[in-house]
Amino acid sequence: MAFGWIDGQADQRRRAGLVRTLRPRPADSPLLDLASNDYLGLARHPEVVEGAARAARTWGGGATGSRLVTGTTELHTELEHELARFCGFEAALVFSSGYAANLAAVTALAPHGSLIVSDAGNHASLIDGCRLSRGTTQVAAHADPDAVRKALRTHEGPAVVVSDTVFSVDGDAAPLAAYADVCREHGAGLVVDDAHGLGVLGDGGRGAPYAAGLAGAPDVVATVTLSKSLGSQGGAVLGPARVIDHLVNAARTFIFDTGLAPAAAGAALAALRLLDREPERAARARAVAGELHTRLTAAGLEAVRPDAAVVSVRAPSPEGAVRWAAECRAAGLAVGCFRPPSVPDGVSRLRLTARADLSEGQIERAVQVIGTTRP
Amino acid sequence: MAFGWIDGQADQRRRAGLVRTLRPRPADSPLLDLASNDYLGLARHPEVVEGAARAARTWGGGATGSRLVTGTTELHTELEHELARFCGFEAALVFSSGYAANLAAVTALAPHGSLIVSDAGNHASLIDGCRLSRGTTQVAAHADPDAVRKALRTHEGPAVVVSDTVFSVDGDAAPLAAYADVCREHGAGLVVDDAHGLGVLGDGGRGAPYAAGLAGAPDVVATVTLSKSLGSQGGAVLGPARVIDHLVNAARTFIFDTGLAPAAAGAALAALRLLDREPERAARARAVAGELHTRLTAAGLEAVRPDAAVVSVRAPSPEGAVRWAAECRAAGLAVGCFRPPSVPDGVSRLRLTARADLSEGQIERAVQVIGTTRP
Repeated sequence: MAFGWIDGQADQRRRAGLVRTLRPRPADSPLLDLASNDYLGLARHPEVVEGAARAARTWGGGATGSRLVTGTTELHTELEHELARFCGFEAALVFSSGYAANLAAVTALAPHGSLIVSDAGNHASLIDGCRLSRGTTQVAAHADPDAVRKALRTHEGPAVVVSDTVFSVDGDAAPLAAYADVCREHGAGLVVDDAHGLGVLGDGGRGAPYAAGLAGAPDVVATVTLSKSLGSQGGAVLGPARVIDHLVNAARTFIFDTGLAPAAAGAALAALRLLDREPERAARARAVAGELHTRLTAAGLEAVRPDAAVVSVRAPSPEGAVRWAAECRAAGLAVGCFRPPSVPDGVSRLRLTARADLSEGQIERAVQVIGTTRP
Repeated sequence: MAFGWIDGQADQRRRAGLVRTLRPRPADSPLLDLASNDYLGLARHPEVVEGAARAARTWGGGATGSRLVTGTTELHTELEHELARFCGFEAALVFSSGYAANLAAVTALAPHGSLIVSDAGNHASLIDGCRLSRGTTQVAAHADPDAVRKALRTHEGPAVVVSDTVFSVDGDAAPLAAYADVCREHGAGLVVDDAHGLGVLGDGGRGAPYAAGLAGAPDVVATVTLSKSLGSQGGAVLGPARVIDHLVNAARTFIFDTGLAPAAAGAALAALRLLDREPERAARARAVAGELHTRLTAAGLEAVRPDAAVVSVRAPSPEGAVRWAAECRAAGLAVGCFRPPSVPDGVSRLRLTARADLSEGQIERAVQVIGTTRP
């Protein structure tokens, strides 16, 4: 029977405690949210919401076509100019998602005969980019510039090193400056996904490449998402104008996808302008993360020291993690629960987001709930 | 130098007349639009626009996380239920784009050891799905059930046949019923992309699978986009509930992507309800396509007889196509211009969209402009 084999996989998942189900949330959820990626608490900010509504009214519900046909509006161009300027890059190109931006950057910059060196902790979208590209991929040990150097030495010809700037599971930062040094020793390009860095790291949230002095460099390309700190949807690739021109001509997820909806572009632009005007939001997200970590550790929990706004807490097992998250939820706290295959090392964890708009009381309450519900 | 090789590619493109540039459009473009995929003219319909604005106000600018963490709202569930019901399928799953939906359907339904038989005219996103999947792909001649049968005979074990329902370049329809028959001879699943069928084909625009009597079958999965007839952004996979459950657990572009922005879900839902209430829009799009084809042919142009709402007109060369489209634009008419690598056979064409809301006068004007500007 067609698709008959999926029932066996479903049974295996059930036995392993790895079944995923969707839990639709209401608009007025009473839960304290430490699960989303809304790092700056901007998704429901009135200016961001009005940015979306105004853009829909001005430009319509959708972009109506590929960016190369009818899908580029002046709003997309405005967003691209402001994103590039804010993050310190020469040019930017907006996509319908961060996933699409990552597929584009990796596939278009790793042609046949080239080498991709990919950090072992990279996000699924970068890994899929490696798998889709015509280049050959070598996976290097996580956050290890020597491993990257060793891989680059095996190859003559074009090469790129691909890494998250902040790894989504544990919230640890990549050694960006060291990666850039190794790339320059070998004439390789550096492609970094700053999904969890934009809005959190760097002066006023300008991102990890900016913080590392790499923004605007001719050999550095960054991808960002509009769906985390900017509270919207979409992604972008930032880099030298000649690289962006190349993507316009070569990236399949750009050429063959409908342009980002105007409402999403409008929301992201409003959030970007807000962040530009209120740069303290970024520092506050980092401070909340530090405080969460300190308090969780003091409560005897195994939390990873955060480099950005993600705080990861180890759980004893997938089932234990699910139970723990469910008990937090029952106590009014939403936390993320990462299990295989979303964790590179097979270790399940709770994943907490240090939102910039959390109050001291909310931080205290969160830590108290997590501590008392631990398995 | 890092990325040095891209300059050579840029030179080649320039010499071949294949440089792509973005042309941002203003909100109040005076051009008559036959270039977008807004088949029903709903992208700027007040109900669709207000659907987007209201959803942003109620739910925020973004979904704030993966659908499996915080990214599923009751709005997403509502859209999924209504989409499945409208198209005649048991269940639906919404993605941030049609591209992501296609990557999900193909990769999750073609495991290691399986065979994918892929129609040679398939969209880039289906092709990328084949390339990302763990199964083995055989490309079958375009719209040729015998070629599909021959490919299926080479394989034991799970197999899927993957095809667009309406091919985006020439607007021709796939032989869906014959594909389904061949699949059933071999116990293979059928995965079809109805991006250009939803809203245009089938009773009231319920899509090509519905028209072929395949909607809701246990061995048929359809993908759709929310960005064409529904005037928004996003995509969905429609199929048996057990297949949709499998995607929730196995599809990387579902698990590792931020949920569709509420504004896009709200716009698509409003468009779907409008179409449900005004089913004549679908038939009108088909009638406009037929009329365009008749008139273009009468004017001596080489147009492909449309099976849906896309009308393709052959151009003498890539440069000729670009010049032709530019002259149409100068005369106030926006038409699509497809060149390599967006065309499977290397033949450039103008691509016209038969919007349901075009008036007789607009159709006449479009044909007149295309005829007088032909190279």
